[in-house]
Amino acid sequence: MSIWRRLSLFVLASALCSCPCRAEDSAMENIVTEKKAEESHRQDSADLLVFILLLTLTILTIWLFKHRRFRFLHETGLAMIYGLLVGVVLRYAIHVPSDMNNITLSCNVNASPATLLVNVSGKFYEYTLKGEISGSEVNDIQDNEMLRKVTFDPEVFFNILLPPIIFHAGYSLKRRHFFRNLGSILAYAFVGTVVSCFIIGLLMYGCVMLMKQIGHLGGDFFFTDCLFFGSIVSATDPVTVLAIFNELQVDADLYALLFGESVLNDAVAVVLSSSIIAYQPEGDNTHTFEAMAMLKSFGIFLGVFSGSFALGVATGVVTFTKLRDFPLLETALFFLMSWSTFLLAEACGFTGVVAVLFCGMTQAHYTFNNLSPESQERTKQLFELLNFLAENFIFSYMGLTLFTFKNHVFNPIFIVGAFLAVFLGRAANIYPLSFLLNLGRKHKISPNFQHMMMFAGLRGAMTFALSIRDTATYARQMMFSTTLLVVFFTVWICGGGTTQMLSCQKIRLYSGFLEQSCLMMGFLCVQQIGPDGVERRSTKQESAWFFRIWYNFDHNYLKPLLTHSGPPLTATFPACCGPLARCLTSPQAYENEEQLKDSDSDLILNDSDITLTYGDITVSTDATGAHTSGMPVGRVAVNSDEALDRELAFGDHELVIRGTRLVLPMDDSEPPLPLDSRLGPSSIMH
Amino acid sequence: MSIWRRLSLFVLASALCSCPCRAEDSAMENIVTEKKAEESHRQDSADLLVFILLLTLTILTIWLFKHRRFRFLHETGLAMIYGLLVGVVLRYAIHVPSDMNNITLSCNVNASPATLLVNVSGKFYEYTLKGEISGSEVNDIQDNEMLRKVTFDPEVFFNILLPPIIFHAGYSLKRRHFFRNLGSILAYAFVGTVVSCFIIGLLMYGCVMLMKQIGHLGGDFFFTDCLFFGSIVSATDPVTVLAIFNELQVDADLYALLFGESVLNDAVAVVLSSSIIAYQPEGDNTHTFEAMAMLKSFGIFLGVFSGSFALGVATGVVTFTKLRDFPLLETALFFLMSWSTFLLAEACGFTGVVAVLFCGMTQAHYTFNNLSPESQERTKQLFELLNFLAENFIFSYMGLTLFTFKNHVFNPIFIVGAFLAVFLGRAANIYPLSFLLNLGRKHKISPNFQHMMMFAGLRGAMTFALSIRDTATYARQMMFSTTLLVVFFTVWICGGGTTQMLSCQKIRLYSGFLEQSCLMMGFLCVQQIGPDGVERRSTKQESAWFFRIWYNFDHNYLKPLLTHSGPPLTATFPACCGPLARCLTSPQAYENEEQLKDSDSDLILNDSDITLTYGDITVSTDATGAHTSGMPVGRVAVNSDEALDRELAFGDHELVIRGTRLVLPMDDSEPPLPLDSRLGPSSIMH
Repeated sequence: MSIWRRLSLFVLASALCSCPCRAEDSAMENIVTEKKAEESHRQDSADLLVFILLLTLTILTIWLFKHRRFRFLHETGLAMIYGLLVGVVLRYAIHVPSDMNNITLSCNVNASPATLLVNVSGKFYEYTLKGEISGSEVNDIQDNEMLRKVTFDPEVFFNILLPPIIFHAGYSLKRRHFFRNLGSILAYAFVGTVVSCFIIGLLMYGCVMLMKQIGHLGGDFFFTDCLFFGSIVSATDPVTVLAIFNELQVDADLYALLFGESVLNDAVAVVLSSSIIAYQPEGDNTHTFEAMAMLKSFGIFLGVFSGSFALGVATGVVTFTKLRDFPLLETALFFLMSWSTFLLAEACGFTGVVAVLFCGMTQAHYTFNNLSPESQERTKQLFELLNFLAENFIFSYMGLTLFTFKNHVFNPIFIVGAFLAVFLGRAANIYPLSFLLNLGRKHKISPNFQHMMMFAGLRGAMTFALSIRDTATYARQMMFSTTLLVVFFTVWICGGGTTQMLSCQKIRLYSGFLEQSCLMMGFLCVQQIGPDGVERRSTKQESAWFFRIWYNFDHNYLKPLLTHSGPPLTATFPACCGPLARCLTSPQAYENEEQLKDSDSDLILNDSDITLTYGDITVSTDATGAHTSGMPVGRVAVNSDEALDRELAFGDHELVIRGTRLVLPMDDSEPPLPLDSRLGPSSIMH
Repeated sequence: MSIWRRLSLFVLASALCSCPCRAEDSAMENIVTEKKAEESHRQDSADLLVFILLLTLTILTIWLFKHRRFRFLHETGLAMIYGLLVGVVLRYAIHVPSDMNNITLSCNVNASPATLLVNVSGKFYEYTLKGEISGSEVNDIQDNEMLRKVTFDPEVFFNILLPPIIFHAGYSLKRRHFFRNLGSILAYAFVGTVVSCFIIGLLMYGCVMLMKQIGHLGGDFFFTDCLFFGSIVSATDPVTVLAIFNELQVDADLYALLFGESVLNDAVAVVLSSSIIAYQPEGDNTHTFEAMAMLKSFGIFLGVFSGSFALGVATGVVTFTKLRDFPLLETALFFLMSWSTFLLAEACGFTGVVAVLFCGMTQAHYTFNNLSPESQERTKQLFELLNFLAENFIFSYMGLTLFTFKNHVFNPIFIVGAFLAVFLGRAANIYPLSFLLNLGRKHKISPNFQHMMMFAGLRGAMTFALSIRDTATYARQMMFSTTLLVVFFTVWICGGGTTQMLSCQKIRLYSGFLEQSCLMMGFLCVQQIGPDGVERRSTKQESAWFFRIWYNFDHNYLKPLLTHSGPPLTATFPACCGPLARCLTSPQAYENEEQLKDSDSDLILNDSDITLTYGDITVSTDATGAHTSGMPVGRVAVNSDEALDRELAFGDHELVIRGTRLVLPMDDSEPPLPLDSRLGPSSIMH
């Protein structure tokens, strides 16, 4: 609530002090102070209430849209529209009479400490630093009390609203398709974001040079500012597109590529932008190029990223072994551990948001398996709710701030340049990288997928939070205003046009639907397109050698060590490490050995342990080459993928018609949700 | 997070200003400011991390205790102990070197506005008022940086931590036994709390007079202060006792009396204390008795209480009719509505906590029935988690603050007096009221129940939050220190001795256990003690006329209007209102008419619609006198309670042994939780 403690009266300090002391009735003064505090508290409550009601309105309208199956406007886009409307009302319709108690105090100090003690007639009052106010703002500050009241501390977004969103993204990433496309996702997220950042930075620098030439630039704008702009608008947030993908059951690989890229490039963009800020060449001119400072920035990038990564993974790995009997305690502990990851990273000087992301991914991969079924559901629902509230709050605040922010700098040349740069930056990320990745990928990323990824480069919460963090200088103000427009445009136009783009690009729908039907039967379906065709997959081709190595290590050593699932370590450790393995293996692992309840078995993509059950044909192979079959009819045994593929050519006509084909059995990783909720619109991805 | 923005360096303003302006390199200064802000943010994260780890430690230890079935220490008591330990460490073991950057600024102003603009070398910085600092504190402020860092804004407790606790209490109150004892609970909560407040106030005033006589009083202490102390320590919080009751399945009526009283007297105490603060006689002496001011205070009490009540009920009544398909939206809306109740009440000048309590009760009674089963579970779990975290946080902060709070005033006479007054005040609440209530009650409150209620008068979160709110004066500081000791003593001693007290008072256990077993069979059990006995109940005797009238009105008009359950209004409205009734009845009500899925049917205590099924005997009566029976064997029909009671005398030997007997069928109001979780320790009350 105290973030809402805002100026109800203020004081200008401009010249030398010359205020006489007044001795007043202390009791009366106390009462007046209490009255003032109460009044301010009431006002704060009313302000916050505006936002809560805004969110309530958004929810009700979203429900209407979902009910009627309108897909052209997502809840975040809607939240922005409502925010815009409220912003217009606050800006133009409401006139708040300026406070009667305004006192202009004169005081001159030569530092801006975090806390100020002020002596008022012998009483000391403590003041905390809220931030700097630009000179131009000081004059009209009294007219805009209402607008300032609805202005949040920008750090709120970074420290309170973003962490649950990012954690939820990480916690939802534990998906077969994500790990299958891990290499491509990492390439898009790391290489792509850096490329995009520098392309946009260079283009914007050209734009700024042009503006300087024709005298359109009203302040300093350095190359580092351009790079900073490049880094913040490189964080994509296709939440609108993904919601439609989920609803329409668009190709799962495309979904995984987009979602994985957007989640990871947020992390890259945050660290990249902070490294760019940290670029400080020695000497007088702080805006020249210097190799050492550049290297130092690069070192900061690596250090902060890997530190946050290590910290997130380390806390995520923490296992809950015996709390399963008390779901409330378990859920509380899970929540506190996730939060402490954020705080620990911030306290260590790393980036909390990045740590939380990797913490979420690790927890989904390991900790989730140790939770009781009830806690699995509870934690998912909790973070789903937090994500939903935080996301809609940020987007409605974005709409609001377009009208209530006082220092907007809308420069037409810069805006046009930015849109162009954003477009080209995204193109320079997707197309060349896809070409390079396709050289190595067995399962190519088809051109229509590339166009879709290009189109789905929406900017959202992360871009906004990064740009609002510092709006002190002219350059930053122009960036902030431009960023807002980029977000609005991409969310409304690209988000709204997703269904049109999907049908225009002829991207297959319903494959996911079929996959889900197969999941119900206990099968995994993998898309395959016929001889006319673009793509064809088999089990072996999917799994790159890198992934296989990691998977085996994870399955044989990490999983048994960190969860109760997987084979006992005694079976996987070399014989010489027997005692160590016995001591590290949890007793439950032996119990579970039979009914291996590792919910990650959807990752099994290597040759061993493939069991195929289709129709009345049962195929089973394992690494030792021993074949078993369950059903008496049509028994076929295979021990190579080719044989498996050959086998699959029979009996699946119906499925092939819809471009889908049966390959692997799978143990779906979901907790035992009721079927209707799993298929409902609120579930993120299956 | 901004509540944690604390002094990392500070500035003393004592005399006239005389600071020369310095023109410095603006860029360098910016960097220094950024560094400072970053440092402060890191420190804040580390401080908050201490609390999170404290909570984590508490959870792990609680788990150990629950696992080993230790009942002598509840989680809240444990949280206090850990808080105490951390407080000791912070106070005595950690020495934080004072900040190098301390700058002593001189500035003298004659007002304490909420916001201060400070001009630093041409740049304006905005400062917000944090609070007053006592003169003595100013001198040693620099030594206690660490202690001040872990000090929260007291309003945090009232505005952030208490609302979820109180809401959860209200949301859990929807229970058969609560409504059955409604009259007694209201008497204890309203009359009892006021009596207790005045008794304690008078006793403390005597104590203060005595201290003044022997010169032990170091400052002002007026009669209103005594009354204020009486009101804040009258708020009981037997969370420890109730947890043990729940675990041991103690008598459900005793549980309902204690829980209901504690929930409602919190509300009464809050409003009472604010009315006492509002007592301001006109004229110079603000501490004399004046009838008008007294009446005004009384008016404030009534106005604020009824206003909060009306507001809470009004928002609680809001129905969710068609969002059932989207549990996430539904849960989010539910959460936002509850929060906006709090904000709305605060913005209107009522008491948010009280409004939230009645909002929770109303939502449990009406809105809960309209939620989808998934949302019912989600909302319950969400508020259970919030309640758990907030409660443990408050109690661990309580432990911490005993050592970190700098202005403790421990006065032995006052402390002894307070303990005595608290004891006598509780006794004056329970015993005389129980006597009076027993005159009217068919089912008497037995002496051992009274002793148990006397013993269970623990003080907790609400008392603490009220006392820490204002610690500016000597009187308030002494109250705060004494209150802390009262809370510690009652939570540890009374809380820890609950099991001993139960066995000492020979209060029956396991009746609840049996009730639960019956619930599983679809029955409701009501305790009855044999001819040796103390109490005997039947269906009719339970329901007072007041309750019957309310129940009928609620069942026939409110429920159908506000939920989809209950009979259609067209059936219950008089014929003349036919069109209105048709228009108000939801279409679903007709559908549901057959399988009346009102989850409040556990409230049915009047003569009509009693169906008894026990063993192979089925008894069914309804208001029209038509008897039906479902089972062919041993059919008996009754249409009066006497007959029903007579009937019950047969065939329940086994149950009578354990002091329990079968009376009513019931549709349990719980959502379809798995059985193990319903019986688990985390569920509050069944």
